Amino acid sequence: VDQPIIFEEPARLPQGFRCAARNCGLKRDGPDLTVFFSRVDAAAAAVFTRNQFPGAPVIVGRERIRRGQLRALVINSKISNVGNGETGIRNALRMASAAARALGVNDDDVLMSSTGVIGLPLPIEKIENGLEGIAADLQDDPLVAARGIMTTDRVPKALSCRVGAATITIVAKGAGMIEPNMATMLAYIFTDAALDATELQHMLPEAVADSFNMLSIDTDTSTSDTCVLMANGLAGAIDSQSFFRALHAATIRMAEMLARDGEGATKLLRVHVHNAASRTEARQIAKTIVNSPLIKTMAYGADPNFGRILMAVGKCFDCQVAPERLYAEINGIPVIRHGVRAGFNDADLRDHLAGDPVDITVDLGVGDAHATAFGCDLTEGYITENAAYYSS
Amino acid sequence: VDQPIIFEEPARLPQGFRCAARNCGLKRDGPDLTVFFSRVDAAAAAVFTRNQFPGAPVIVGRERIRRGQLRALVINSKISNVGNGETGIRNALRMASAAARALGVNDDDVLMSSTGVIGLPLPIEKIENGLEGIAADLQDDPLVAARGIMTTDRVPKALSCRVGAATITIVAKGAGMIEPNMATMLAYIFTDAALDATELQHMLPEAVADSFNMLSIDTDTSTSDTCVLMANGLAGAIDSQSFFRALHAATIRMAEMLARDGEGATKLLRVHVHNAASRTEARQIAKTIVNSPLIKTMAYGADPNFGRILMAVGKCFDCQVAPERLYAEINGIPVIRHGVRAGFNDADLRDHLAGDPVDITVDLGVGDAHATAFGCDLTEGYITENAAYYSS
Repeated sequence: VDQPIIFEEPARLPQGFRCAARNCGLKRDGPDLTVFFSRVDAAAAAVFTRNQFPGAPVIVGRERIRRGQLRALVINSKISNVGNGETGIRNALRMASAAARALGVNDDDVLMSSTGVIGLPLPIEKIENGLEGIAADLQDDPLVAARGIMTTDRVPKALSCRVGAATITIVAKGAGMIEPNMATMLAYIFTDAALDATELQHMLPEAVADSFNMLSIDTDTSTSDTCVLMANGLAGAIDSQSFFRALHAATIRMAEMLARDGEGATKLLRVHVHNAASRTEARQIAKTIVNSPLIKTMAYGADPNFGRILMAVGKCFDCQVAPERLYAEINGIPVIRHGVRAGFNDADLRDHLAGDPVDITVDLGVGDAHATAFGCDLTEGYITENAAYYSS
Repeated sequence: VDQPIIFEEPARLPQGFRCAARNCGLKRDGPDLTVFFSRVDAAAAAVFTRNQFPGAPVIVGRERIRRGQLRALVINSKISNVGNGETGIRNALRMASAAARALGVNDDDVLMSSTGVIGLPLPIEKIENGLEGIAADLQDDPLVAARGIMTTDRVPKALSCRVGAATITIVAKGAGMIEPNMATMLAYIFTDAALDATELQHMLPEAVADSFNMLSIDTDTSTSDTCVLMANGLAGAIDSQSFFRALHAATIRMAEMLARDGEGATKLLRVHVHNAASRTEARQIAKTIVNSPLIKTMAYGADPNFGRILMAVGKCFDCQVAPERLYAEINGIPVIRHGVRAGFNDADLRDHLAGDPVDITVDLGVGDAHATAFGCDLTEGYITENAAYYSS
């Protein structure tokens, strides 16, 4: 029988993992430099952005993860190491070396990430200075690290769940430039379960496919997306099916946390597509609806403009759809039956749209595939945030 | 030699074409019911939305345009006839019949459009009553019709150009739910040149491919997009190459007018992609950049966040790009050379971004194909407009 998955509040790092965060002068205030550390060798897997102009940490990280083993992660926020050519690669390596020295591990066992403005040089001396002596700051609270990796995020994001004797903890950031394609901007997953790198490398993309890869805040795919999973084995062996179920549930819950904290967002938007012709089409239609600016502004304004669902499904030109089979509901209120308006009351629908989350369910009636996408509403806050991000 | 193309202000309808617009009670104020009329039979061609849930006028229009001949167009604004099933088809036919009676032409010679909120029933009696006696209102100013077809447009849009003895006039609306895919929301093109329907049906999609189909305001593809071209021949024969050049130039100019009047827009955004591997890839990359919320908010805020160009090009996963070959400039200022920051001054770039239009040029250096896309910035005004469109 499947072991139960128990989400725990507050989040805590699994045994053997610790973290620290400092301000090294990249941000005016607050932590901008973060490390995670495992007391023992951890099996590791990672997925990275599909953006064709990846940051230097992604280029180096893809090579480094091949060994399937890590001891530490080092992350700076405020400036991403992207568009910096050979200098960027050198600085990514220097950042890992400095973390390795400070934590007493090998260079090869450190993966690095940088997140923030694209195209500016990485202030590597500040980072190197900031890492000196950071081992003394290591502690157990994952929110310390969650705060250190934030850019435009409003709240630090970490969660923990237990499955059997093992704990899974995810620390992540999101907010903007989020339509990940392999992983969300930055998500670090730690477990004390004993699993080898091959198992992790199979499980991680599968969990990410239903969670972070179904998340879109603004359709823009970051150059720095990275999702790392480290398993240090201190809690011993675990039934791998139970572990996968917990990993899957935890990544979906984190995707929802990231969506709800999207830039300017006031609510979580979930789109469930049922009975599509294929899983690929279900995912594409769910993503198209969750990304539609007109659906997002409808959710923000609680405007009962249900007809936009027809528009959004219909613009998936290459998917199998049939107007006369389309059924749709919003937070349980049927709004479209057989492709035409269902018998609902505008005021009721407005009340439901005013809530959080807004769940849009679409039944295509043409097959049996399902998908859920995660997003948020589109508000003036997104504009304000992004009209001056470089300069602020 | 090519005949010169002369744009004329103010716009005027070509000889033999007239228009009228009235309020029939769909909008609280202002005209909501419009007709165009040709004194003689006109050869005609049309392109329609690729949205899979097209409105009833699109379904009927596709059939009706096959004869290649029209005498009149009838358009209502405020409520689109979409998601109304069989009733919608019947109402589209009734609307055309009422216009045919009022103008003294055959039913088959009338094409209809409806634009506005999706999924509400069309108030057909108001439209039928409104059309009675409308022939008495026919006159020459295309801005009368341009006002009648507006929804969230801020300004009426019409332009005229002369080529040889012929005139081409375009009357259009845009504003939101605009990533046309065959045509923009509604664009009506009239000429007194003598061209047959076969020629028109070849020229129109080709002109639209470089103009309305390269326009995106918000990535949302309307269910009502329609572009009609009518040629009544009253100005006599014309060299078809010269005519095509004029049609091409006029549709591009109208695409720019539509982009600049996008919902909430403060400026026109043009993205020029050079030396792509193929025309398809050039178009895809140009569209991706012009649609990126982070590029659009950069243009709005005049924030010199040039690195977002790397992100937007890089998220075209299936296109051939090479970071070390990428060159980009904004309004003539080089910002990226060989994939890294060029030597520019942030303050200079900010000044250029504050202007209108903002032209982003990207040279991929991997082939010899070119494309230009038209869009606008993303502002709080878009949110305000669309958070309450149904209810306002």
